[in-house]
Amino acid sequence: MRTLALMSFLFVVTGLAVCQAQPQLNLMPLPASVQQGSGMLPVTRSFSVNVTGARDPALEAGVQRFVAQLSRQTGIPFRPKAGANPTLTVHADKALEAIQKLGEDESYQLTVTDSGAQITAPTTLGALHGLQTFLQLVTITSSGFAAPAVTIKDQPRFPWRGTLIDVSRHFIPIDVLKRNLDGMAAVKMNVLHWHLSDDQGFRVESKTFPKLAAMGSEGHYYTQAEIREFVSYARDRGIRVIPEFDTPGHSRSWFVGYPELASGDGPFTVEDENGPSSVTDPTREETYKFMDKFVEEMGKLFPDAYFHIGGDEVDGKFWDSNPKIQAFKQAHGMKTNQDLQAYYNQRLQKILAKHHKTMIGWDEVLHPDLPKTITVQSWRGQDSLAAAAKQGYSGLLSYGYYLDLMWPTARHYAIDPMSGAAATLTPEQKALILGGESCQWAEWVTPENVDSHIWPRNGAIAERLWSPQDVTDVNSMYARMHAVSLELESLGLAHNSTRDRMLQRMAGTSDVTALRVLANVVEPVKDYNRWSDEKGPIDFHAPLTRMIDAAYPESDTAREFSNLVQQFVQSGYKDQAAEAQIRTWLTLWRYNDAKLHPQLQQSALLQENTPVSQNLAMLGAAGLQVLDYLDKGLAEPDLWKAQQMAVIEQAKKPVAGLLLMVVAPVQQLVESSGQPSH
Amino acid sequence: MRTLALMSFLFVVTGLAVCQAQPQLNLMPLPASVQQGSGMLPVTRSFSVNVTGARDPALEAGVQRFVAQLSRQTGIPFRPKAGANPTLTVHADKALEAIQKLGEDESYQLTVTDSGAQITAPTTLGALHGLQTFLQLVTITSSGFAAPAVTIKDQPRFPWRGTLIDVSRHFIPIDVLKRNLDGMAAVKMNVLHWHLSDDQGFRVESKTFPKLAAMGSEGHYYTQAEIREFVSYARDRGIRVIPEFDTPGHSRSWFVGYPELASGDGPFTVEDENGPSSVTDPTREETYKFMDKFVEEMGKLFPDAYFHIGGDEVDGKFWDSNPKIQAFKQAHGMKTNQDLQAYYNQRLQKILAKHHKTMIGWDEVLHPDLPKTITVQSWRGQDSLAAAAKQGYSGLLSYGYYLDLMWPTARHYAIDPMSGAAATLTPEQKALILGGESCQWAEWVTPENVDSHIWPRNGAIAERLWSPQDVTDVNSMYARMHAVSLELESLGLAHNSTRDRMLQRMAGTSDVTALRVLANVVEPVKDYNRWSDEKGPIDFHAPLTRMIDAAYPESDTAREFSNLVQQFVQSGYKDQAAEAQIRTWLTLWRYNDAKLHPQLQQSALLQENTPVSQNLAMLGAAGLQVLDYLDKGLAEPDLWKAQQMAVIEQAKKPVAGLLLMVVAPVQQLVESSGQPSH
Repeated sequence: MRTLALMSFLFVVTGLAVCQAQPQLNLMPLPASVQQGSGMLPVTRSFSVNVTGARDPALEAGVQRFVAQLSRQTGIPFRPKAGANPTLTVHADKALEAIQKLGEDESYQLTVTDSGAQITAPTTLGALHGLQTFLQLVTITSSGFAAPAVTIKDQPRFPWRGTLIDVSRHFIPIDVLKRNLDGMAAVKMNVLHWHLSDDQGFRVESKTFPKLAAMGSEGHYYTQAEIREFVSYARDRGIRVIPEFDTPGHSRSWFVGYPELASGDGPFTVEDENGPSSVTDPTREETYKFMDKFVEEMGKLFPDAYFHIGGDEVDGKFWDSNPKIQAFKQAHGMKTNQDLQAYYNQRLQKILAKHHKTMIGWDEVLHPDLPKTITVQSWRGQDSLAAAAKQGYSGLLSYGYYLDLMWPTARHYAIDPMSGAAATLTPEQKALILGGESCQWAEWVTPENVDSHIWPRNGAIAERLWSPQDVTDVNSMYARMHAVSLELESLGLAHNSTRDRMLQRMAGTSDVTALRVLANVVEPVKDYNRWSDEKGPIDFHAPLTRMIDAAYPESDTAREFSNLVQQFVQSGYKDQAAEAQIRTWLTLWRYNDAKLHPQLQQSALLQENTPVSQNLAMLGAAGLQVLDYLDKGLAEPDLWKAQQMAVIEQAKKPVAGLLLMVVAPVQQLVESSGQPSH
Repeated sequence: MRTLALMSFLFVVTGLAVCQAQPQLNLMPLPASVQQGSGMLPVTRSFSVNVTGARDPALEAGVQRFVAQLSRQTGIPFRPKAGANPTLTVHADKALEAIQKLGEDESYQLTVTDSGAQITAPTTLGALHGLQTFLQLVTITSSGFAAPAVTIKDQPRFPWRGTLIDVSRHFIPIDVLKRNLDGMAAVKMNVLHWHLSDDQGFRVESKTFPKLAAMGSEGHYYTQAEIREFVSYARDRGIRVIPEFDTPGHSRSWFVGYPELASGDGPFTVEDENGPSSVTDPTREETYKFMDKFVEEMGKLFPDAYFHIGGDEVDGKFWDSNPKIQAFKQAHGMKTNQDLQAYYNQRLQKILAKHHKTMIGWDEVLHPDLPKTITVQSWRGQDSLAAAAKQGYSGLLSYGYYLDLMWPTARHYAIDPMSGAAATLTPEQKALILGGESCQWAEWVTPENVDSHIWPRNGAIAERLWSPQDVTDVNSMYARMHAVSLELESLGLAHNSTRDRMLQRMAGTSDVTALRVLANVVEPVKDYNRWSDEKGPIDFHAPLTRMIDAAYPESDTAREFSNLVQQFVQSGYKDQAAEAQIRTWLTLWRYNDAKLHPQLQQSALLQENTPVSQNLAMLGAAGLQVLDYLDKGLAEPDLWKAQQMAVIEQAKKPVAGLLLMVVAPVQQLVESSGQPSH
């Protein structure tokens, strides 16, 4: 028997750029200066690249990757041949040193005419960025693939544009990290902040202290060989790798193998969140001997000048409850645990300095006792950053860039490191604000869905940190981010493709069309609301296979629908094209639950979404009734409106950790009822 | 501006299995014997496997892969732990020898109850098959993932169940081949026939004759280290790797580096199909010295007992035009070029035997002068195979299993090695028919789309070769193939996901919904019609990025639509549900071109499909008019019918290498007009 279900369906409008009269260039981050020319440079089978000037391994590999990616984008199997008349010439003045440094010249110029293209850059690093820009310029046209004529002069606004990836809460294998490096390079990010240890796992092999990984990782860690290869992979993409070993807090995983480092009693485990926890004991000299050897080893493994020691959220209760630590504080005249942490950090900073490392830590490390050489990473905000800068400390912004909080892209995009108190700094103080880092904390991600938590939103953060401060047009950003999202998929990222696989898993062998309709209008709850839904500590070994895990952080459909409703309301309910489109969406949602309900019932992974699907149907019905009243020029009964508002209030409540993102525009429609109709 | 286009849309019915009253098990190939029990075995976080009995590296690795794949399927992060009470016990009586052999016992039994599961097998090879069956049993249910209670006793019908993959016409990298091995193992295929050389490329590093790959591959070849690792990867999956080095025909790539092997003059090249070609010169003793050393080296690299020498389609003109070869024939009393080839094959067979290899070749190698030890692979059909068997030669069927001919699955599925003349053989002769091989010839595939040319159709061929001869239900096959197709995607094959990426490439940043509607109802032209569309020799360096390259070989939508029309017609036009569904499809197609047309115009890759999209719209309109006449109880004017038939005839013609697969059912509707209506 066949159960061919029927429904109406809408094109999802994501390719906004295509519809614009003046085709905008789908570049992200937007370059500092773009001058469009006339004509196009065809990208054909005879496309070739010639490198002149300085060469280094990163550029050599970068050009090879460029050709491979251009081939993936266009499907043209370019044949490696030295062309006498190259299509693209790449010229860098200077090769880079083996170890990439903060603040190297990343600028480049890219000129495309209808007969050829040139990238020139002071350094090979800039040339790599120019290659990425060229890739974003190439589009399909009616006469084949081509890059538009353009002159681009580009350089970054901030020298530090990073992404933190937490691999402790959930282990992320090297291959998944590598494709994320590819994505970072595509949007010109230049720092991977590798959050390698936390309470839930210590992820690096140490030969000096083998029990760190052997006992603190449940077998999920990177070998030193893997790390070396990974750092070199990053280096080839112009990306510095900064390791973070969080201490003295967030460090339970160290204590599984080395309980003597802890301020309290073990035995410790990374397997059970209900077991004992602790923080590092800063009063024992052995701790510093350990850290000295540890930093020596890790400092060699991670060649970058910066070394992140974490330093955030130290739970003082573990110090308060230890009489020896209390005695130590008293003996040294320390009044607060902050003082004790500052003491620890000072000692640590000296160890780092001995091994030629610059210390970086979270807000809490800021303390007047520490030298001005350290860098502060702020999860608290621009004001903290400004306060640090006023004291002479350099800083990075991560506040506002927490990808795990499931914010819409526009909200991240609006956060500027130089706003708030930072806007009032002197030029010298402003120069201390090095940039920022997005943060992908990993309580709720697996290797399967981590890409979709990072991308494409991370592209907009990359733009915030690279492009001029006045690049703030949200519509333009969304259109360009859509194009970049497609580019990233072709690079190998799975942020889009994974969702369908996860939906299919939930649905068994059933068709996922109706499930996709639902998935397209929900988002996971925001901020720390998922945390607070947990009863007791988070179960880090639970499957993450629910709709909340598959859903995109931001619903394109809801954004588009909301825009449509705005347009319709602003037209005085006269825009009939908009109304027709709104009606089609509402009809789709109105009848989707009828098809989806049986599927939801058949799958243990889907059952919890039953009320969400029902709410969507009720919203569809309410919206359709509003349109019917409007069309008939009738005011609907007061009681009806009250009933619909009750439906809407009901639909606002998160169910199964999901927010139904079309509630607000439907509410707007319902509230608009009684307005003069067309 | 927003251009939110509206359209109606249908659920594509692919999950037929779900709709059936008696849930069938989604197993492919269907086991020899299945007895369903009652209850289900839950697959939860505590799932564990215990191996008892014989062990070997293949089984060890197989169990690890099994757990990893079960984890991918279910999303459950199983934690490796030795369970006292394992969920699944695997017991094999006997480990296998290092080199897998034809005819090893592959049988297994799998018992699942609501409290546990057992696999028992005479060999670890059988146990591997049992693990694959278990994976296919696990489904999502309303109470979580589970395997239904069942007793399966299974063994293959044929000992040789292979897939030929041609890597000469287009090079296929090792990682793509590996995921295809994973797919083969999932459907219990046990031979990869690796077509490693042909006119267009010699793909294996030879240390004895380094110019073979260095000059004959344009840099696209496998190193010996890669091959060793690959053979071991296959071995771990119970798959034998048979190399094929095609000779004396299809061997231009040998002559680029070693022109002295050729019967005619060079210089030869693999880059230009217009350049000189040739076949091997069988009259020079040096040829046999070369082959002796070559077989010695390759025989070690490929440990399997079988060695494929090709032997097909030898173009005699190269011998005819060489006076020395003519003289040799005369001197040896050979009348035909077949005699000369038989002479060559005899000599070759002796060389193979010296290096402990069994010769296998295509139909043409069959000649009474050759010993009965050789095996014949038939592209000609079961009658050839039967004729060989009657002479005492063992054989394999490939006729009917050419995946590159773009046949619908049901057509491959209907081909049985034991039908035709083979059905009349004696039991002893029948035993000489070892099985068969599907063939993926690579004129028209790239690493990007090769998966979709092989899968999921290859699953049905695997079933033909494994399952009992009376397993022939086509509807059941399609339903189970759908489930296997999803399994294969989760294993890493890209047969489904690639199409959307290719469509997106054609569409730039535009939404691909309308393009997908078109892609869903077209198929590439069949058999060798694409070949004949080429003007001159095939350009093996051309991009394969057209719709014909992205389209699935078989349109599920067209098959479903055709079934609907059958159902409607057979109901005497009374089945209103079917009519409504037909109407929705027709409406979708009727209005799709209006949305798609601008997109088609904007992309050089899409323009050629403009008439196909227009034809689809006209078919939709014609079908809708038939339904309208039927609904009104009217007979339509004769002239109208003639006009529609003209539209249909027009739509039947391939455009841009594409067949519009809904023409026939629409024609059926139009022809049915004038019938009594409901």
